[in-house]
Amino acid sequence: MRKIFFTPGPTELYYTVEGHIKTALNEQIPSISHRGSEFKRLFQQASEHLRLLLNIPDGFEILFTSSATEVWEHLVRNCVKYEIAHLVNGVFSRRAWEYSGLIGLRNEMIEAVDGSCSEPNETKISDSCELIMITHNESSTGVAYPIEFLKEVRRKYPKQIIAVDGVSSVPIPEFDFNDIDSLYFSVQKSFGLPAGLGVWIVGPKCIQKSEQLRKSGVCIGTYRALPTMVKRVKAYQTIETPNILGIYLLGKVAEDMLIKGIDQIRRESKYKAAVLYQTILDHPDLEAFVNNPKYRSETVVVAKTFGFTEHFINKLDNHGMVISSGYGEYKTQHIRIANFPTHSKEIVETISDLLSTVHR
Amino acid sequence: MRKIFFTPGPTELYYTVEGHIKTALNEQIPSISHRGSEFKRLFQQASEHLRLLLNIPDGFEILFTSSATEVWEHLVRNCVKYEIAHLVNGVFSRRAWEYSGLIGLRNEMIEAVDGSCSEPNETKISDSCELIMITHNESSTGVAYPIEFLKEVRRKYPKQIIAVDGVSSVPIPEFDFNDIDSLYFSVQKSFGLPAGLGVWIVGPKCIQKSEQLRKSGVCIGTYRALPTMVKRVKAYQTIETPNILGIYLLGKVAEDMLIKGIDQIRRESKYKAAVLYQTILDHPDLEAFVNNPKYRSETVVVAKTFGFTEHFINKLDNHGMVISSGYGEYKTQHIRIANFPTHSKEIVETISDLLSTVHR
Repeated sequence: MRKIFFTPGPTELYYTVEGHIKTALNEQIPSISHRGSEFKRLFQQASEHLRLLLNIPDGFEILFTSSATEVWEHLVRNCVKYEIAHLVNGVFSRRAWEYSGLIGLRNEMIEAVDGSCSEPNETKISDSCELIMITHNESSTGVAYPIEFLKEVRRKYPKQIIAVDGVSSVPIPEFDFNDIDSLYFSVQKSFGLPAGLGVWIVGPKCIQKSEQLRKSGVCIGTYRALPTMVKRVKAYQTIETPNILGIYLLGKVAEDMLIKGIDQIRRESKYKAAVLYQTILDHPDLEAFVNNPKYRSETVVVAKTFGFTEHFINKLDNHGMVISSGYGEYKTQHIRIANFPTHSKEIVETISDLLSTVHR
Repeated sequence: MRKIFFTPGPTELYYTVEGHIKTALNEQIPSISHRGSEFKRLFQQASEHLRLLLNIPDGFEILFTSSATEVWEHLVRNCVKYEIAHLVNGVFSRRAWEYSGLIGLRNEMIEAVDGSCSEPNETKISDSCELIMITHNESSTGVAYPIEFLKEVRRKYPKQIIAVDGVSSVPIPEFDFNDIDSLYFSVQKSFGLPAGLGVWIVGPKCIQKSEQLRKSGVCIGTYRALPTMVKRVKAYQTIETPNILGIYLLGKVAEDMLIKGIDQIRRESKYKAAVLYQTILDHPDLEAFVNNPKYRSETVVVAKTFGFTEHFINKLDNHGMVISSGYGEYKTQHIRIANFPTHSKEIVETISDLLSTVHR
């Protein structure tokens, strides 16, 4: 039986993807040269569609990687010489902090308890920190920073590079690129694409810093050295042979989202999240894991099950709906339900109705 | 019009790939979790099929990356503390040498002129070199080391780690893993798969060295640190969310190749290469770029065109056959024709016949 995936990524494919894959095969996209004009055209289209969709200003470059995980390492190699600060409130933000340590940097941790966020006025970061890394959406616990928080961080720390991990939220939050210098995400989440492609957006502050580090003799890497990547991207090229099919599909899905209208997608996302959270709040056997409504993620909704995770997963699976267990230590205590653009209002209403009928 | 790609990669898809992609979509492979049992099963299958196909012994681990380019950096970070030697005879082997320099290592270069290989008795490598990197098949110029050369290198340099870039040749050469410690390649060449996946095979010598470097305080990286990757791979897991569809397809194509028989594929490859080279030798307006027959690549056949590259490309393109120009400085002086397992004997005979009829 064909199922519907509400997992936080990989997830249900965006509803146009299968058609685009078939077109790509008919047009022999996987066989074209990554140095030829046809590839440059599709690269340019993907770039332009993303720029429009996310309102990315001039001066910011859109780079393709193979995952967001690799950005954790290469962002830091390119943009930090001595010291970095990480806002940590879950498994993924903690892992990025660990990576900075492995690379040999002084890695400050500003920690909030799981299911919560640091408050701007509590966020004390050393002046000597060169970069602040913020995980916008912690898909491990379903907690997200309000985007106003980023404005506050920028105001308090105007000198620092501000990098935002938007892995499981982009394109839903309306990020203001005046407040951030880098944004990165992977495509198997909110874009509903097959895994194996990451997007790394870098602004002038990142590019200048990497050039400066290279001049001062710091090893900023090879195939992920920002100055080289940026030079190549201006000709719609990558250094390695990239995931050509992935870039093609991302360009097509970004175009589909533009046609539907990003405002419409964002409105629907808010509505669907409200339906899901209301279902959880009304449910006698479930409770929202994130207490403070302003920190509740729109794209990954997490509920406490009081040990009945498997029961809820199985009951929904019987109806062809795949949701996720909790992450790590919460494996048996949470359920996680993704609310991505591919999930229609109707299907979210359906799963919510169904969830209401499942009891311990 | 549907074309047939004889380009050196990306290239014509292996003839079973389109069917496998359709099956993958029906089975919702791009939506499954990379932490779940279904993924582990397909990862294990891909591993086991590759192990059989390439005769990879126990103790060697099969890791997945997103390209071979990234292996250039991460192999060196994991396995070299001070000094590395590169056998250079073309653009790609030279780029790997440059990368080692960028990382800050002493990078010895043993150079052979384009279109040739270093002779074993001419290959003098410092005793202090920790790793010798050999590009088995230079797809820029169509030159390949005979595999006996590797045996000779192992005999002369028993202490060193011997790493072989088999990007555009694997699975055609019958490498003996007694002679090498690491082999890596990408799948858009001889495997005829969409780009965006690399395979990195590492032996005990590489793994031990990376553990030793980490203990001695060298930064061996984060998501590509060998000890961590090896630990994960034993549970059929990757660190990042990988190219799940790519791994699935590689497993299926490796299985198809096993069913056909790797010996049969290798015999056909030799026959097809002989047909292509004979066509070039008999052609009044073409000449093999590689003089010494023992250094001629079986998988990427390169001919000199004496400035008529575009003419040959266009004439073949009119018949729906896509070949490649020369690489870099040879752009207008060479044509490159791939001879991969997806290219049947019949189609290679057809392109050869056609090539014979094209004149300046």
